[in-house]
Amino acid sequence: MATIDIQTPILGLNEKLAAQNRKRFDEKGVFVLDLMASPGAGKTSTILATIEALRADYNIAVIEGDIASSVDAEKIKAHGIPAVQINTGGACHLEANMIQKAIEQLDLDNLDLIILENVGNLVCPTEFYLGENAKVMILSIPEGHDKPYKYPNIFQISEAVILNKYDTLPVFDFDEQEFEGVIKKLNPQAPLFKLSATKGEGVDAWAAWLRDRIDEAKQVRTCD
Amino acid sequence: MATIDIQTPILGLNEKLAAQNRKRFDEKGVFVLDLMASPGAGKTSTILATIEALRADYNIAVIEGDIASSVDAEKIKAHGIPAVQINTGGACHLEANMIQKAIEQLDLDNLDLIILENVGNLVCPTEFYLGENAKVMILSIPEGHDKPYKYPNIFQISEAVILNKYDTLPVFDFDEQEFEGVIKKLNPQAPLFKLSATKGEGVDAWAAWLRDRIDEAKQVRTCD
Repeated sequence: MATIDIQTPILGLNEKLAAQNRKRFDEKGVFVLDLMASPGAGKTSTILATIEALRADYNIAVIEGDIASSVDAEKIKAHGIPAVQINTGGACHLEANMIQKAIEQLDLDNLDLIILENVGNLVCPTEFYLGENAKVMILSIPEGHDKPYKYPNIFQISEAVILNKYDTLPVFDFDEQEFEGVIKKLNPQAPLFKLSATKGEGVDAWAAWLRDRIDEAKQVRTCD
Repeated sequence: MATIDIQTPILGLNEKLAAQNRKRFDEKGVFVLDLMASPGAGKTSTILATIEALRADYNIAVIEGDIASSVDAEKIKAHGIPAVQINTGGACHLEANMIQKAIEQLDLDNLDLIILENVGNLVCPTEFYLGENAKVMILSIPEGHDKPYKYPNIFQISEAVILNKYDTLPVFDFDEQEFEGVIKKLNPQAPLFKLSATKGEGVDAWAAWLRDRIDEAKQVRTCD
């Protein structure tokens, strides 16, 4: 029986469009962060806390990915930050072509940082390069310390891991030591940031890391 | 340009295998529940609480779907309940062919209820019929009351909605009234069960509903 490989060309086209996105971001000097997490892990709250920490020094925009609704984009806009809402329909992740369309609505010449809030999902977003400079993931305390065993890939491909809702640690049966041990094995280089995004706690270390990554990328571009 | 529709035949094959599964379950008098939720919403804890509530009257088995690991199947087996772990590799949902293989390891003649714990994901599992009698979903309080806006489909196709980690309501900014209002609009027939699965609170009403569904299905089969 002849088999047709449908995944390779689909991913191939996505890679091509993602490379185009990246070229455009590099030309414009924009750093792009792809933020991934489960539904309700606190992606939007983390983005809002990050904006507060960095908005004095960087021009920021947000692209929101959701199956439906514009709840998140409205939250971001309410803070005076440009936001574009992508509704993926059924798709469980953002793809490079969606980003290509969304950035038409942004003034790239006057931006330093775009944060992509991917669809809430620990699986599908890991497979799609969007042209970003870094992928970062959030796990929240209520989700449990066993998630790296079940969804190892997202922990492996993230450049940093944020542990959010850290203030709720006393309420949940979350084994911090075990969690940190597994993360260290899966991704020894990735820093772990413990945050309570809605309370603004622990944001400084995370914002400092992101600041360094943005400035490094700027320097590399200047030296090219 | 000619376009190839790749989704229809893939879903078509799944539907065919799911129908075979369902025929087999009906012949054996087994009720099958497909339980869907985000990572960490408490699927395994809810299954354990359900087992405790029903094990005196029904023979139960569990099929666990995860990208990797056998953490969940081990937890179930530790309670003396047969469990089969499916590792989907990269797949973000269970499919009918996976269930077909998994049930080879179960003694269907001596089972009344099989609970399928789908992969943690609010999107992909909604598209795949596995041969189950009912799909039920869990949302947990820490995920937030806005999730039905963002992931409407899973709320619409579920026969019942479980709101888990209800004991943590005072810790989170969860607007219960808004949540219940949206659910009523999306899915007016679906009952809503408020549970704290790890504490065994609120399990009775949920277990009574499931008990009714199992007994109804048995009666329909007997009358055929």
